[in-house]
Amino acid sequence: MPHIALGNDAPGILSLFAYRPETARPMNELAEILLRGPSTLTRGARELIAAYVSSLNDCDFCASSHSAFAAAQLPEGMELVDRVRADLEGAPIPEKLRALLRVAGAVQASGQDVRPEDIAAARAAGATDLELHDTVLIAAAFCMFNRYVDGLATTVPDNPADYEAVAKVIVEGGYQAL
Amino acid sequence: MPHIALGNDAPGILSLFAYRPETARPMNELAEILLRGPSTLTRGARELIAAYVSSLNDCDFCASSHSAFAAAQLPEGMELVDRVRADLEGAPIPEKLRALLRVAGAVQASGQDVRPEDIAAARAAGATDLELHDTVLIAAAFCMFNRYVDGLATTVPDNPADYEAVAKVIVEGGYQAL
Repeated sequence: MPHIALGNDAPGILSLFAYRPETARPMNELAEILLRGPSTLTRGARELIAAYVSSLNDCDFCASSHSAFAAAQLPEGMELVDRVRADLEGAPIPEKLRALLRVAGAVQASGQDVRPEDIAAARAAGATDLELHDTVLIAAAFCMFNRYVDGLATTVPDNPADYEAVAKVIVEGGYQAL
Repeated sequence: MPHIALGNDAPGILSLFAYRPETARPMNELAEILLRGPSTLTRGARELIAAYVSSLNDCDFCASSHSAFAAAQLPEGMELVDRVRADLEGAPIPEKLRALLRVAGAVQASGQDVRPEDIAAARAAGATDLELHDTVLIAAAFCMFNRYVDGLATTVPDNPADYEAVAKVIVEGGYQAL
């Protein structure tokens, strides 16, 4: 049961967006720019970063949601998302993406944990400064979203198919369609 | 030295806002609503929550900035901010604010660390559901801002008076004036 009376039965962050639309608007706008706006990183790769960080934060709702959003936009689908979440070092992904996911994992622990050698390794694998910037901000933003969702103890859907239904909405209409 | 070439000499988050104005806009809008928008919590109290969480995250730039913004808007000024940062349990503040700061401190560690008894204690001290919501979201948002600033290794001002100068801008014109 959520810690406060939200006045609606929506799951996870959707219940918070309905409760406080004033703050929902800039949060959705930030997600839209970072995860779906113009970028040299694919939408699938960016959702994978969001899913990976949410998984490290043990946020069931966000990890399941963004895993579904990543799977819907990656040719390899959920199998690859599951492999990255289970074993980043052994997952069959390009080295640049692995290096960016390592940076995201450092940010999840603390901003101070990002070492110059992590940045250098990502750059050596082909990452640009803007890709590094956006990776750090995606990871940081999910440290906010995850804490918002769990800090108010929002509910998690009973039916896993619910995440796929939301994935369809996001893929077709973006975060502002929520 | 920042991890990426930001193309400007501004300190802390200001250098990131100049580098990527697209993401700066929703982030500043979120800060404006949470820290300065209509609320039953004073602006000083809300900045104190931001300063306290930034302090727990060891983010020098954000902790110094929001301590200055809190001090500028609290009758007791920096002396009280310093006491809260050094010893929350012993600081001379109303019990409701102390209970909200405890909730914020739990969020800083993890969303899952907020216990029903923390929420109940804040409610018993007079906190409303909306105050609890905004406290959790302010704490969560600063877990983002702090990681953004430190994850890209932005610079910290040499001169402490710089924070007071920015405080003046914020108090008079808000976050969108940045």
